[in-house]
Amino acid sequence: MTISMHSASVPIFVRMLGNLGQWLDKAEAHAQARKFDPAVYLGARLAPDMLPFTNQVQIACDAAKYGVARLAGMEAPKFADEEKTLAELRERIRKTVDFIQSVPAARIDGAEDRDVVVPRRDGSMTLKGEVYLKHFALPNFFFHVTTTYALLRHWGVELGKADYLGAFGAPAR
Amino acid sequence: MTISMHSASVPIFVRMLGNLGQWLDKAEAHAQARKFDPAVYLGARLAPDMLPFTNQVQIACDAAKYGVARLAGMEAPKFADEEKTLAELRERIRKTVDFIQSVPAARIDGAEDRDVVVPRRDGSMTLKGEVYLKHFALPNFFFHVTTTYALLRHWGVELGKADYLGAFGAPAR
Repeated sequence: MTISMHSASVPIFVRMLGNLGQWLDKAEAHAQARKFDPAVYLGARLAPDMLPFTNQVQIACDAAKYGVARLAGMEAPKFADEEKTLAELRERIRKTVDFIQSVPAARIDGAEDRDVVVPRRDGSMTLKGEVYLKHFALPNFFFHVTTTYALLRHWGVELGKADYLGAFGAPAR
Repeated sequence: MTISMHSASVPIFVRMLGNLGQWLDKAEAHAQARKFDPAVYLGARLAPDMLPFTNQVQIACDAAKYGVARLAGMEAPKFADEEKTLAELRERIRKTVDFIQSVPAARIDGAEDRDVVVPRRDGSMTLKGEVYLKHFALPNFFFHVTTTYALLRHWGVELGKADYLGAFGAPAR
């Protein structure tokens, strides 16, 4: 009558990162159809003091990568923040999915009661794994995924809820 | 070594809806400081064919309300989509939180293996409760919560990751 911590984390990250990759494909096709350089997306911001598109994709990936690594008590692989094209961002998504799928479920299961140390700008904080997943890792991940989507919509890429959610199609509400 | 379906759903919705309410407070204070009518937020859109601010808040509430009701196999209360002020949107958030907190945990626990019927524009689809929560209800909820946040940031309200996540403060990454 319950779900495991692996089941409550990895499949969500993997599915949404797959959806994110498809938005990049649509963004590239949109740029080609409109005859502009897809690299112009990379600096797009929703506000002057918000991080641009490239950082939103990088941090979406990192939120998933560190989320899973911290729950598993493992070191996450380091990916340099140096992507300059949509293709390189897709490669970062691919490496991220490869890593989180490589983590054995047994390393994550049981994490609900373990301490997870989360680095912060001004030090670190310790949360139980369940609190970390539900109130930090998942919200932070969805923040950057949705902000990436919002940037593409703001810049004219034709995406809809069916692209956001993936294979289910658009909900009535 | 697992978490319950109630624990994997209700606390996430309640916490994020509380955060959302605080963004509305900051938006109202921003409007007062800049001497504009806070009602101008209500029609704000990130793209011409995206739903405006008021709908984003309404649907964030409904995503939580219907998510919990469907997992519990209950009818959700109907809230008319007629809010015209930030105060009325806050009231909708309050009613939503009251409802989802009123649902007994025992009604939701065990939903992982139950069928959930999700209305769609072109009919309906049936998902297992665990799939519905992880790949539909939570992503859809975070979509509308984050889009609301993005709209307020786009319109100049001073919000940061600490406001988004709530009491933990801003993460280093």
